[in-house]
Amino acid sequence: MISGQNLIAGQWSAQGNEVFASINPRTKAESTVRFFNATDGEIDLAVRQAARAFKTMRLTTAAARAAFLESAADEIEKLGPALIEMADAETGLGQPRLEGERARTTHQLRLFANLLREGAFVEAIIDTAMPNRTPAPRPDIRRMLIPLGPVAAFGASNFPLAFSVGGGDTASAFAAGCPVIVKAHPGHPGTSELVARAILSAGEKHGLPPGFFSMIQGDSVRVGQTLVKHPQLEAVGFTGSLRGGRALFDTAARRPRPIPVFAEMGSLNPMVISPRALAVRGEDIAAGLVNSVTLGCGQFCTKPGLVFVVDDAVSQAFITRVAELMDQRQPGVLLNQAVLAHLSADVERTRATGHVSERTATDAVVLEGYSFPNTIFQTTAEQFIRDESLQNEHFGPVTLFVMCPTPDALFEAVDSLDGTLTATVHSEAEETGLTGELFSRLREKSGRLIWNSFPTGVEVVHAMQHGGPYPATTAPQTTSVGMTAIKRFMRPIAFQDLPDDLLPDALQNANPLNIWRIVDNQFTRDPIRP
Amino acid sequence: MISGQNLIAGQWSAQGNEVFASINPRTKAESTVRFFNATDGEIDLAVRQAARAFKTMRLTTAAARAAFLESAADEIEKLGPALIEMADAETGLGQPRLEGERARTTHQLRLFANLLREGAFVEAIIDTAMPNRTPAPRPDIRRMLIPLGPVAAFGASNFPLAFSVGGGDTASAFAAGCPVIVKAHPGHPGTSELVARAILSAGEKHGLPPGFFSMIQGDSVRVGQTLVKHPQLEAVGFTGSLRGGRALFDTAARRPRPIPVFAEMGSLNPMVISPRALAVRGEDIAAGLVNSVTLGCGQFCTKPGLVFVVDDAVSQAFITRVAELMDQRQPGVLLNQAVLAHLSADVERTRATGHVSERTATDAVVLEGYSFPNTIFQTTAEQFIRDESLQNEHFGPVTLFVMCPTPDALFEAVDSLDGTLTATVHSEAEETGLTGELFSRLREKSGRLIWNSFPTGVEVVHAMQHGGPYPATTAPQTTSVGMTAIKRFMRPIAFQDLPDDLLPDALQNANPLNIWRIVDNQFTRDPIRP
Repeated sequence: MISGQNLIAGQWSAQGNEVFASINPRTKAESTVRFFNATDGEIDLAVRQAARAFKTMRLTTAAARAAFLESAADEIEKLGPALIEMADAETGLGQPRLEGERARTTHQLRLFANLLREGAFVEAIIDTAMPNRTPAPRPDIRRMLIPLGPVAAFGASNFPLAFSVGGGDTASAFAAGCPVIVKAHPGHPGTSELVARAILSAGEKHGLPPGFFSMIQGDSVRVGQTLVKHPQLEAVGFTGSLRGGRALFDTAARRPRPIPVFAEMGSLNPMVISPRALAVRGEDIAAGLVNSVTLGCGQFCTKPGLVFVVDDAVSQAFITRVAELMDQRQPGVLLNQAVLAHLSADVERTRATGHVSERTATDAVVLEGYSFPNTIFQTTAEQFIRDESLQNEHFGPVTLFVMCPTPDALFEAVDSLDGTLTATVHSEAEETGLTGELFSRLREKSGRLIWNSFPTGVEVVHAMQHGGPYPATTAPQTTSVGMTAIKRFMRPIAFQDLPDDLLPDALQNANPLNIWRIVDNQFTRDPIRP
Repeated sequence: MISGQNLIAGQWSAQGNEVFASINPRTKAESTVRFFNATDGEIDLAVRQAARAFKTMRLTTAAARAAFLESAADEIEKLGPALIEMADAETGLGQPRLEGERARTTHQLRLFANLLREGAFVEAIIDTAMPNRTPAPRPDIRRMLIPLGPVAAFGASNFPLAFSVGGGDTASAFAAGCPVIVKAHPGHPGTSELVARAILSAGEKHGLPPGFFSMIQGDSVRVGQTLVKHPQLEAVGFTGSLRGGRALFDTAARRPRPIPVFAEMGSLNPMVISPRALAVRGEDIAAGLVNSVTLGCGQFCTKPGLVFVVDDAVSQAFITRVAELMDQRQPGVLLNQAVLAHLSADVERTRATGHVSERTATDAVVLEGYSFPNTIFQTTAEQFIRDESLQNEHFGPVTLFVMCPTPDALFEAVDSLDGTLTATVHSEAEETGLTGELFSRLREKSGRLIWNSFPTGVEVVHAMQHGGPYPATTAPQTTSVGMTAIKRFMRPIAFQDLPDDLLPDALQNANPLNIWRIVDNQFTRDPIRP
């Protein structure tokens, strides 16, 4: 049923000799199917065909792209239980979580379809001519966003559906009008092939040119590097590790013609809990925190990896309770051997600093498959500020408590944070001063501020910002979740004095798409009287 | 009157030993004033003070920043004729052009003030909570743009006012709420000092913290490189050469924490003239083209440097006429010796390709100061496509005609173009097919498409896009002119479930700023009923 081949512009292809298997993280068993690393020739063909397809795709109407995205969602659903079974065998994430992720993936495709139908995403701005202005007449200038061109999207290990072949990067690039070449993650190649088939079917149904979509397999760094170096590629979307994202960023920046890399590279997602919140609802927060840290076996970009508290009897008791809950919970299975190896090494490095103590009883845990003990570390504000290595991410069910002798020490520790996707404060409603002070400091570090909740769970809504200052991302001015993610794959263009019938619909006098525009500095959907 | 010193966070400073003079390009005379290259220590202090000032500046209201920008415009005007005289002595651009440029500069500052008062530039998007959603309630998510932090702005040689100390980069960064460190262009250091004084006065008047603005001098590559490497810098604006812009881009990308470089690096600004347009109004186009090519002595980023025509008797006569007009016009004075040296070398390289013929009688010209003969080259579509070096920019009064045997050859030549700021088509109204075909191809190469006009002259309006695919810029998704230029220096942040009184004004339920927002996917200025 699974071919192991690459999908190159509508054709399944296996030109190479390098193969790899997928591995079940619960049983450590290899798949019988072998997956073919894409060759340089296959990658070149995929990008050249994408560039060719772009000549047609960029002229498609937003409504046509909306219909295609909805078909893609339908086709993914039609894969049925086979998709969930395959994804579970390859990632060990479990049926409930994967069904939720599938729902998120198809919901996201349909939301982008809605955005396209609504139409204002092109950001039309029109300044009409002033023929009588002195000393010189003012021309008519009309601006909108247009698609960038072929986009490479790198599948993430930890979201085999929502951040992979049919995930947010692919959905937003298609919505923008860009062809997509997905580099599938080698952790779930079978899942990737299934979703690629669904997208191919949807594209064929809507008559998209063959190069609109390719999916290349690979467990070799060469595959991704070759893709990013291709002269006809225009942008890169990536979700994964700092090391991986930075490598692609460096490659793209060193091209003769540099291109943007929108890499979301995870983060520590600091959480501050006020003494009063601990006193009032410590038990609830402990349960919520343990759920958040262990969700998806701690392999979320938004896992809270740092918890700041003021050091007192209540917070000491709180940590003891959190450690107890962590010890009681059977560790989940990590995605693959590489994740386990990196996590083990990262945890060893943290232990070796001599700046942390352990609160969980990790030695007592019985482990099955690629799993790792749920782990709580503890350090002091002073050590945290002095030792930058304590800001290295642990991609797994691990979190670090930072004990601050005073609120001022807590502020200082927060000020020493690197960029992060999210930052959370738990405090009581009456603590306006403390909460405001914390958010004021945290907003300079973070893409999303959260009050009295947990950072895992990233809503797919218009207002979502999933990004943040480096090292959380290479592109803090963009988001990889939410509707504005489409802007990563568009660029503005202005039209000066063009005849109305040569302007794109979005900019024509009559406003045939009936979209919101800014005309002579007024938000309006009214037509322009020439 | 001119100190030659650096302005470091409110203090005039000359710690270094390296000095340089400014040179009058008409007389080649050196200024008596010596200007001090900023030392590494001065640069460090400027950026550290900017980072410190940012803690206050980011909390200023848009209305307060608007008042400051208007004061800056007033203070620049108050410099009076002394500013124009200084700028003319340093650049040779002449009083009328410089007075126009000053008007553009102050107009730009005031337009950003208007934008701030209108308020929608923060792009507020709000998705309200759905407490009853299943399986889990939806949180309240509110997103807006916030300022990035300290910005370095590099002054341009060719616009000593509008793209220099108080120019578009500075204005848009201040508007965003960012402190600015200007690296003054060594071609007009005295002009830079005068404008820096005006900005300092305006800042003091409005109580901005000292680090809000610094201006550093330097004729050494070290100064700019040290600035861009500073760990507390967040973004770079630049207008200048491809070599200079790429060097800064590379430095910024190689930092431990990369930062964006918004470099506008000039371009060829191709122009296509249809056979019918030549037949109907060749004489008008010839006059307009010669004006556009020689404006500011050809030192505009938007100078038309390539003209495509179909090769026939009419176009041959047209080129003869253009060359005649160019020969009749006394060459202007270039900005400085470096521009002359680069232009001479670039023209020699073009001649040495053996792929161009000369249409102007350049040997016959008497030259004064740093000037260069008005020059018209001619090549064929075939040679143009084959020899990529014919796409090197000549920064001066030089343009290249590309003779195309057929319209198809013309399309092919256009398809071989690199990225460019603008692309222009001259054609007749009834030639819809040809014009549409040309624009369809040119839009993939360009940031602005122009019909029946000339690319020099970039209106400062909301809809302006002054940018384009590399090598025109390092950041095709942004503009350096027009009101959306502010977005270069802002990033989105989302607030999840924050109490209303801890949200920024722009996101509060009552909409106290009365700005346009997208609330639950509807454009509205209505308040939200909680």
